[in-house]
Amino acid sequence: MTEIEQQPLMSVFLATRQQSIDICKPLAIEDYGLQAAAFSSPPKWHLAHTSWFFETFILKPFVEDYQVFHPAYEVLFNSYYNAVGEQFPRPQRGLLSRPTVIEIMDYREHINNAMSILLMDQSNPNREEIIKRCRLGIQHEKQHQELFFTDLKYSLSKNPLYPEYNSLPEPTNEADPVELQWLSFTGGLVEFGADANVHNDDNEFAFDNESPLHKVHLEPFVLANRLVTNGEFQAFIDDGGYQCSELWLADGWALVQEKQWQKPLYWIEKDGQSMEFTLHGLQTRKANQPVSHLSAYEADAYANWANARLPTEFEWEFAACQQKFSHQVSDDRHPQSARVTDTDEQPLLQLYDGCWQWTSSAYRPYPGFEISEGAIGEYNGKFMCNQWVLRGGSCVSPEEHLRPTYRNFFYPEDRWQFSGLRLAMNGR
Amino acid sequence: MTEIEQQPLMSVFLATRQQSIDICKPLAIEDYGLQAAAFSSPPKWHLAHTSWFFETFILKPFVEDYQVFHPAYEVLFNSYYNAVGEQFPRPQRGLLSRPTVIEIMDYREHINNAMSILLMDQSNPNREEIIKRCRLGIQHEKQHQELFFTDLKYSLSKNPLYPEYNSLPEPTNEADPVELQWLSFTGGLVEFGADANVHNDDNEFAFDNESPLHKVHLEPFVLANRLVTNGEFQAFIDDGGYQCSELWLADGWALVQEKQWQKPLYWIEKDGQSMEFTLHGLQTRKANQPVSHLSAYEADAYANWANARLPTEFEWEFAACQQKFSHQVSDDRHPQSARVTDTDEQPLLQLYDGCWQWTSSAYRPYPGFEISEGAIGEYNGKFMCNQWVLRGGSCVSPEEHLRPTYRNFFYPEDRWQFSGLRLAMNGR
Amino acid sequence: MTEIEQQPLMSVFLATRQQSIDICKPLAIEDYGLQAAAFSSPPKWHLAHTSWFFETFILKPFVEDYQVFHPAYEVLFNSYYNAVGEQFPRPQRGLLSRPTVIEIMDYREHINNAMSILLMDQSNPNREEIIKRCRLGIQHEKQHQELFFTDLKYSLSKNPLYPEYNSLPEPTNEADPVELQWLSFTGGLVEFGADANVHNDDNEFAFDNESPLHKVHLEPFVLANRLVTNGEFQAFIDDGGYQCSELWLADGWALVQEKQWQKPLYWIEKDGQSMEFTLHGLQTRKANQPVSHLSAYEADAYANWANARLPTEFEWEFAACQQKFSHQVSDDRHPQSARVTDTDEQPLLQLYDGCWQWTSSAYRPYPGFEISEGAIGEYNGKFMCNQWVLRGGSCVSPEEHLRPTYRNFFYPEDRWQFSGLRLAMNGR
Amino acid sequence: MTEIEQQPLMSVFLATRQQSIDICKPLAIEDYGLQAAAFSSPPKWHLAHTSWFFETFILKPFVEDYQVFHPAYEVLFNSYYNAVGEQFPRPQRGLLSRPTVIEIMDYREHINNAMSILLMDQSNPNREEIIKRCRLGIQHEKQHQELFFTDLKYSLSKNPLYPEYNSLPEPTNEADPVELQWLSFTGGLVEFGADANVHNDDNEFAFDNESPLHKVHLEPFVLANRLVTNGEFQAFIDDGGYQCSELWLADGWALVQEKQWQKPLYWIEKDGQSMEFTLHGLQTRKANQPVSHLSAYEADAYANWANARLPTEFEWEFAACQQKFSHQVSDDRHPQSARVTDTDEQPLLQLYDGCWQWTSSAYRPYPGFEISEGAIGEYNGKFMCNQWVLRGGSCVSPEEHLRPTYRNFFYPEDRWQFSGLRLAMNGR
Repeated sequence: MTEIEQQPLMSVFLATRQQSIDICKPLAIEDYGLQAAAFSSPPKWHLAHTSWFFETFILKPFVEDYQVFHPAYEVLFNSYYNAVGEQFPRPQRGLLSRPTVIEIMDYREHINNAMSILLMDQSNPNREEIIKRCRLGIQHEKQHQELFFTDLKYSLSKNPLYPEYNSLPEPTNEADPVELQWLSFTGGLVEFGADANVHNDDNEFAFDNESPLHKVHLEPFVLANRLVTNGEFQAFIDDGGYQCSELWLADGWALVQEKQWQKPLYWIEKDGQSMEFTLHGLQTRKANQPVSHLSAYEADAYANWANARLPTEFEWEFAACQQKFSHQVSDDRHPQSARVTDTDEQPLLQLYDGCWQWTSSAYRPYPGFEISEGAIGEYNGKFMCNQWVLRGGSCVSPEEHLRPTYRNFFYPEDRWQFSGLRLAMNGR
Repeated sequence: MTEIEQQPLMSVFLATRQQSIDICKPLAIEDYGLQAAAFSSPPKWHLAHTSWFFETFILKPFVEDYQVFHPAYEVLFNSYYNAVGEQFPRPQRGLLSRPTVIEIMDYREHINNAMSILLMDQSNPNREEIIKRCRLGIQHEKQHQELFFTDLKYSLSKNPLYPEYNSLPEPTNEADPVELQWLSFTGGLVEFGADANVHNDDNEFAFDNESPLHKVHLEPFVLANRLVTNGEFQAFIDDGGYQCSELWLADGWALVQEKQWQKPLYWIEKDGQSMEFTLHGLQTRKANQPVSHLSAYEADAYANWANARLPTEFEWEFAACQQKFSHQVSDDRHPQSARVTDTDEQPLLQLYDGCWQWTSSAYRPYPGFEISEGAIGEYNGKFMCNQWVLRGGSCVSPEEHLRPTYRNFFYPEDRWQFSGLRLAMNGR
Repeated sequence: MTEIEQQPLMSVFLATRQQSIDICKPLAIEDYGLQAAAFSSPPKWHLAHTSWFFETFILKPFVEDYQVFHPAYEVLFNSYYNAVGEQFPRPQRGLLSRPTVIEIMDYREHINNAMSILLMDQSNPNREEIIKRCRLGIQHEKQHQELFFTDLKYSLSKNPLYPEYNSLPEPTNEADPVELQWLSFTGGLVEFGADANVHNDDNEFAFDNESPLHKVHLEPFVLANRLVTNGEFQAFIDDGGYQCSELWLADGWALVQEKQWQKPLYWIEKDGQSMEFTLHGLQTRKANQPVSHLSAYEADAYANWANARLPTEFEWEFAACQQKFSHQVSDDRHPQSARVTDTDEQPLLQLYDGCWQWTSSAYRPYPGFEISEGAIGEYNGKFMCNQWVLRGGSCVSPEEHLRPTYRNFFYPEDRWQFSGLRLAMNGR
Repeated sequence: MTEIEQQPLMSVFLATRQQSIDICKPLAIEDYGLQAAAFSSPPKWHLAHTSWFFETFILKPFVEDYQVFHPAYEVLFNSYYNAVGEQFPRPQRGLLSRPTVIEIMDYREHINNAMSILLMDQSNPNREEIIKRCRLGIQHEKQHQELFFTDLKYSLSKNPLYPEYNSLPEPTNEADPVELQWLSFTGGLVEFGADANVHNDDNEFAFDNESPLHKVHLEPFVLANRLVTNGEFQAFIDDGGYQCSELWLADGWALVQEKQWQKPLYWIEKDGQSMEFTLHGLQTRKANQPVSHLSAYEADAYANWANARLPTEFEWEFAACQQKFSHQVSDDRHPQSARVTDTDEQPLLQLYDGCWQWTSSAYRPYPGFEISEGAIGEYNGKFMCNQWVLRGGSCVSPEEHLRPTYRNFFYPEDRWQFSGLRLAMNGR
């Protein structure tokens, strides 16, 4: 670890911390406390929790005589780390009018200062572990930046005034959708995942759930070159997709009945117009955009209706690895603009910038996966059941998370994530 | 109706409107949106709803070409008036980060201006009805001022930081409680309630649920001169009151089991100290203060344990009418200070200034009660079942509502109201 | 207490016990365990619980060295007597396939024998108390005979085969309904209720909730001479009664929305025909029959729609006491046959033989009511809240319970009882 | 298909049908209707549903002018086949006191007769399909025979009398448990599953979820030679296993808190003795018996505690295929007797006769799996999500289902199945 290398970490740390503040700028103070469901968290809570993460896993263990900013925060902003201690009940996060936004900003400043001093101290005997955890803390904060958008969209959607997060007009794109093409892949016995050791040694990063490297046998398969569009999903609806039990997994069908689902989460029919709630407020729904905010059940039912299926997470990763990673984040990239008129020469479009893509894979640990010691071991491992893997990335994902091996995961009933689908079929 | 008389109405209107703003001053912006339960409402919502009331029942019907401030507010701030139209779901009021506090203040200003103009217009053909409804709107807003305190206390209580609404120290009162005395009343065939017609003719006011006047026969009874204290309720707890099914109504006992109630709502044992959450934050519990925040079931069980009973609402009213109404609101009266060291010469203490007193009476219409025509008829009448009557007033009640005939009502399981009890027994 | 008098008690005891068996005769063994809701109980459980009542309150305390039939029954068949001990969870009574029906019959026989021996022993020092409790046990068993029909009807109604309890054809009665007449009553200061002491001294019986005698002041009122009919209730439905919020109490309206109530509990529209589930199976609905199986909310909404109201329990009792009690139970009286073509000369028809009549009175203790010592005190007192009083009697009520002072009580949302309404209005 | 082959099918059909009756013999009539949870079904319902299966999928389509036994049964006994039509609500199956047991037996007889005639008709043009479906119907009925025991045990367990299904004493086995040994397996690229085509051609049978054959790559692993015992699980409990969040998957830990799980489903501590509810009634718990009735969460937490893990379903199948299939069902095999003192020379013990073994594999379709056309396609496919695979067999499994490829599946929270675990670890 040379001196030259440390500067960037400090920069990345501070830039990441600033980024969390920047994305909140369009908010009214009143928005910071919004929590519309137990599964989503208020903006203010994200700001505090990401600070708590650095305080708990780095400052407290590695700074001598460190004084916590506020003793109560240990409980208030602990998300789910039982090994750290009690947690304030998740569904009640929206009830924390105090600490106020200003107090949270003070907390962030306090953490930034303490972390900066620690990162500059090259003689700290735990320097290696500090750097490793700081990297994790940075990636963790970036995950929460994505959750910020996801949760905020959900919370704002409950307000009949349809508030806009982003008051700029949504980028228009009236072009026809790219024609659907089926790309063939051969499969075979292939190695998947990220090498945890390599990632520890250089500036690349992968989460523990992407490891270890391991081999999986794949049969030949074909994959759609682009995501399913709003227009295509409308055809599914028009064909009675939500009324046809044969298309659905049993648990999905039960949910459709119970919740009376008839369309994707944010679709709204208003005065005869097809609208969609977005971070730009209520907008006209565009037929050529990827359909988003589907549960896995809806994605699966659509695939059945289309005589196709969802890809496994390994098929997805295999295909993504076949082509040069050339995701270009344009300057005007912003929430809710999936760049569907991708002009790339590459065959697989929209791998990372439209919405996350449900796979048919249950989220389980890779063979040989070991949970880390201590509380940090709770980061991913304990959630490896009952959820499904999504691959790719969405219009609100941080760039640093866009890679072929990243494993996102949600319950199959979840719809508040930017989640769509890419079709697959057996090949030969 | 003379010119002289109208000035006061305008003054009362504006003073009441200002009072709603004043009591919010200690709040952080973040507090205005707090809603910790479906039965409570955010401060901001109270501010908007009381404005909506004037707009809906006076400005819209009686001002020509009146333009509503915002069409969506008709739904957002309609509490429960089905005849007016749809209502935004009550449990989601806390999700309305927009309109912001500033926007709500603009709304209030708009209503104040429009109402002022209307009230000054003495030639309005509906002047009589306007004045009548304006009086109702003022009393309605005062009720919401009380609810503001009641709801806010509940919402803040969910925050482990125990935020203070009022940062002044709670007034101390270390005196011993007044000795319990039993006062005898003869009863007989007595007329109760308020005369609706009289109230329409002068500046006095009574709600429709206090009418009509009607006769009830009372047997002799005795009533305690003061409320039950924290110290006395502690003795009930120490004697196993919450474990002894014989003391409880069946529905109450089921609730005690289900909710694991072991003490009044805001009692907190912390580090071996007996504390109580108050609008002054967490405070030492005082044995000589009236016990408050009881459900009717707890009040009833306590009375059974004390070999007494709750008074009926008529016994309470009969006794209250026996003595001169001399409630003196001292300058330092403020939330959570029940003036127990009442130096009045009057026999019945704490009728109006400690906490509301559960009676044994089910909240039902008085004989001959008629629901008003139209939406205003929904004000009280439709709630006249399944609730119990409370009489008196509390430390957060508006002075104007303190009178012998006022009928407050809550479900017997409700505990977030400032509700305590005064014992009664059969006389002879 | 003379020898002559004891014989009848023994006879009544044995006849009552036999009656419980007789009404079960049409059942298949499989029916004895049916429990379709927590609020209803299986036939077998009624048979056992009524035996448990005699064992617990008479045999165990008053028979020396009495051996209980089965120790587990003490818990299994305890309904709600906390002072006796634990209770098997009410919603799970239908899960008790054992004890079998035969075992329950053995239990009943055992109790009958032990009780007979005890009743014959005239030298027992507790004879007076034994006789008093035996009378209560007999009345208790008769109440459960009525519940047997009520609960069974509910449980059978959940079976799409619409099983018949009574395979005889329902008695037909195609006559037009009696014309509605309004009878006037003067009211005044009147004494109501049953005298507990008198009832202890002779063969009459009243439950403790009918006492003590006490005075209530009544204003003049008018009462309908008969119950509201199916045909009249259909008109309420046709006029949009279930869609019109103004007619409903708020809690009732919330329930109508939540449960999607559109008609009385057992009304069924099938192949274009208006049917009703009855103890005779599915039957054509008859317009001239009293409407039954209404919640209090529906009864109240109907009364509002009809520009009338429900009577108070005192108005009902006052009117019933005005006419000679001449309820004649015809030989062919049986479940589901309300004798609407009453040929009595009396003005008030269907007081006791159609269905129970909701009153507007909350079920609360009479002034001066005292709960008995010990477990027997739990019989009625602890239920005196949140329920409404019904008066009269139904086609399945035991004759012995038909009297002007009998107070039946259910929650206002309950509909499985044979419950209808008689209209009232203010008089002058 | 020769004549000789058909006899056996008829025999197998009739023997299977008789077997369903035989296992009900110890029941009282009252037991046939027991349903203690929505996930379990009454014995009577199993008897009817298995008949409905033959009627719906064979008799109705392939017998000309076939008259259904009772039109209502089509709905009442349809489990979950949406393509067939409506289904009577699953949680209410216990409310069907009618049809009675006798009527269900008549139904079974009717189906047996009609099926016998059809099976004897060798000229039926659909003979091949009939035979194929008959085989499925037989296997289906055998699955319900297993469910009969599983469900019955659960329902009887809710009765504090702890009724015995089998009144014989449970076979005693006081021997020490077999010593735990770790057996090594090499893995590699291996073919798994059952060949659907082969199974169609001879008397072997496999369900569609066992197909198609497909290759999976396995790393080396080791597997325990026997199941985890009651004694070992007690050590986990004694070591605070149920209080230690680090051992649990997050969803499992949430469930442990919510349900207050502290031990396996049927473990009962009574008067200081360690007991277990069994089909022989309440029995002393035996330390050397396999622990059973665990949720997957408990199995997974135990494995973590033991520094091991659950095997994948492929590891299990790979190991099971390594040794000769020699499951010997002894004459005295009966519910609740896991033959742990297996004297087999084989290394892997208790593969099939103790309890089902949770694997770490999510229940998903095998690559290339296709759902059959029509309602029969609902048999397995639509359940392939959110459940976990169990392998092996239990003391109540039909012999015909004991094979290396059989995939059983339940939700990870399910505990009423006879479900235990066998430990695995990574090999090298």
